[in-house]
Amino acid sequence: MYKINEDYLKLPGSYLFSTIGKKTAAYKEKHPDKDLVRMGIGDVTQPLAPAIIEALHKAVDEMGSPETFHGYAPDLGYEFLRNAIVKNDYQARGCDIAADEIFVSDGAKCDCGNIQEIFSKDNKIAVCDPVYPVYVDTNVMAGRTGTYDAVKETWSDVIYMPCTAENNFSPELPEKTPDIIYLCYPNNPTGGAITKDALQVWVDYANKVGAVIIYDAAYEAYISEENVPHSIYECEGARGCAIEIRSFSKNAGFTGVRLGFTVIPKDLEVNGTKLHALWARRHGTKYNGAPYIIQKAGEAVYSAEGKEQLKKQVAYYMNNAAYVREGLKDAGYEVYGGVNAPYIWMKTTNNMTSWEFFDYLLENANVIGTPGSGFGPSGEGYFRLTAFGTYENAVEALKRIRAL
Amino acid sequence: MYKINEDYLKLPGSYLFSTIGKKTAAYKEKHPDKDLVRMGIGDVTQPLAPAIIEALHKAVDEMGSPETFHGYAPDLGYEFLRNAIVKNDYQARGCDIAADEIFVSDGAKCDCGNIQEIFSKDNKIAVCDPVYPVYVDTNVMAGRTGTYDAVKETWSDVIYMPCTAENNFSPELPEKTPDIIYLCYPNNPTGGAITKDALQVWVDYANKVGAVIIYDAAYEAYISEENVPHSIYECEGARGCAIEIRSFSKNAGFTGVRLGFTVIPKDLEVNGTKLHALWARRHGTKYNGAPYIIQKAGEAVYSAEGKEQLKKQVAYYMNNAAYVREGLKDAGYEVYGGVNAPYIWMKTTNNMTSWEFFDYLLENANVIGTPGSGFGPSGEGYFRLTAFGTYENAVEALKRIRAL
Repeated sequence: MYKINEDYLKLPGSYLFSTIGKKTAAYKEKHPDKDLVRMGIGDVTQPLAPAIIEALHKAVDEMGSPETFHGYAPDLGYEFLRNAIVKNDYQARGCDIAADEIFVSDGAKCDCGNIQEIFSKDNKIAVCDPVYPVYVDTNVMAGRTGTYDAVKETWSDVIYMPCTAENNFSPELPEKTPDIIYLCYPNNPTGGAITKDALQVWVDYANKVGAVIIYDAAYEAYISEENVPHSIYECEGARGCAIEIRSFSKNAGFTGVRLGFTVIPKDLEVNGTKLHALWARRHGTKYNGAPYIIQKAGEAVYSAEGKEQLKKQVAYYMNNAAYVREGLKDAGYEVYGGVNAPYIWMKTTNNMTSWEFFDYLLENANVIGTPGSGFGPSGEGYFRLTAFGTYENAVEALKRIRAL
Repeated sequence: MYKINEDYLKLPGSYLFSTIGKKTAAYKEKHPDKDLVRMGIGDVTQPLAPAIIEALHKAVDEMGSPETFHGYAPDLGYEFLRNAIVKNDYQARGCDIAADEIFVSDGAKCDCGNIQEIFSKDNKIAVCDPVYPVYVDTNVMAGRTGTYDAVKETWSDVIYMPCTAENNFSPELPEKTPDIIYLCYPNNPTGGAITKDALQVWVDYANKVGAVIIYDAAYEAYISEENVPHSIYECEGARGCAIEIRSFSKNAGFTGVRLGFTVIPKDLEVNGTKLHALWARRHGTKYNGAPYIIQKAGEAVYSAEGKEQLKKQVAYYMNNAAYVREGLKDAGYEVYGGVNAPYIWMKTTNNMTSWEFFDYLLENANVIGTPGSGFGPSGEGYFRLTAFGTYENAVEALKRIRAL
């Protein structure tokens, strides 16, 4: 008789956003007349920029003609896209990354989830707390996290690095030595950023202890401050210890278009095995490339028109973030983030738990956010609002919260 | 110090088609004047059908407007596509499959590769020999296949089911009892098909011994004979033992568009755990859906115009297959397949090994095919040609082979 992967059964409950969806649907059914403002899930709302739409149409036409039709894509992605990425995201920032170190994929979530597969099951992971749930959950499914403590909501074999207002949401170096360190900057969910000097400390630490850093830079486009690095490869020595994962979802509105990439420098090796070769083997064996037309859309992100249009799109969301951040501060709330990231991270009031605050906002302001505790135990007492809605919705949400 | 997944290192050599690519490139460099006819990799060459191009353009326009923009897709895929699949691929054939048992993905290769993840590492797999390499390789990477015998080219913990001319490429039920059985019909690489009665034997066997069948039906559109099932769910009891994987790559030319789906009936359970729930959890945690515009292209495959146009496209490739099959027979070759599948499976001549025959055809006819031994030891002495090229190329290849 066949058996299932028992590690899957260890996962507690369902995915955070499913729970929010169910609670929201239940409220909506009871109060069909109420108009909800959704600031929960980090999904974009602005349409694709004209330069991207134009590139998509052109690529679709190519697929309709035998001379310009494209079948299977190259394993690592098309050269035109990998070259554009290297030139704009790395060389322009002085980072020494080559086109054949870029692996194009259908998004950062898949890459964040799959990357653990090339590592031994015995490796110990370290994550920020709170954290994007995919890092931990995919390690649970791989059997790498030990046993779950339902009271503490932690795994016995995971090293948690608390990020709270007390340490300005910057984790200390862990006491126990990890093998794999997940870092996400600008941060989801806290909206915090890291300076180049602070990131250099992590790179030096990883190189010293022989750890690999999985650096999730999905929100890089939202950086507004000067001393904040856009890539971990801005730090010295990062080629020897870091994998970087990037997304087109937030800088170009590709949540429903699906495109991302992972950078694995060829310097990254352990006992003579290059991680680049392992990830290439995974790509070749379990993946068949991102669609040609989507990769052409990705190329348009780096065109002069594309860059201009997307700068405005990012500015639009960051204007929402500033409006919500300042408005909440004015109203007396304790608020973080929203400067280098499209997330506002606020303290709940009256000692409410995160889920109590979720219900309170849903019922009294008809505003939906994400409970901080859904991202880990140190998120308890916090609440996340995203800036990815419309400006009108941000204004409406603030009006309602002010009236509480 | 972090460690890698040692199971990855067990994989012998590189992926079959990389080797063919390298050999071809080397020959081309030495003989730049030679015009090669490529019948190796199973990539399509006809452009997307007009109905699909139209649907893509329309969906692209939707993404450019705030009212019709689409962000994150539903985890399992859009209803419009899942409904079209169920209606056309299942209900129309009398198969009892519901829309919420369909998981839309970016292709059958990913699904074939990832599906093993929901099963225990202790499960024993059975595969046909020869076989599509992805089934075995992904189980190697998961540590499920034991040790490799480089002489026999087999894994100690894999049950091989030889498919040769002697058994008409229909494997016997295995002597050792497997937990997971991979079946692919119409078959890649042998081009063979299975009758409904013969498939029923497998379903009954799986139900009897408590095995699960992973049924890869990627070539279903090429079935031309009456008694050949298009889905395993045409067999009685299949809902209790079978997962079916489908692709849009070969019926609609989507190799560079990327769309597929997996069917997991809710009846499939072991010790009270539904496989449906496990795969849903994987989709929710490690995947973010196929692009909206690609799912709209998939919907167009099932439109009246789409069906009409794609019937012609499939007929075009099958005309190539018939031409090559009959031409080779006339020329005295021993040939199989090409009736219900776009693959021709031929015996090598003069006791040449598969790779010797590859070199012989490359050098003397400038025709590229795939060595049968690349698909497993029982493929030795065979050679695969695909019908996915143009008719002109099929004619040219035959002319050259006849002249040998």
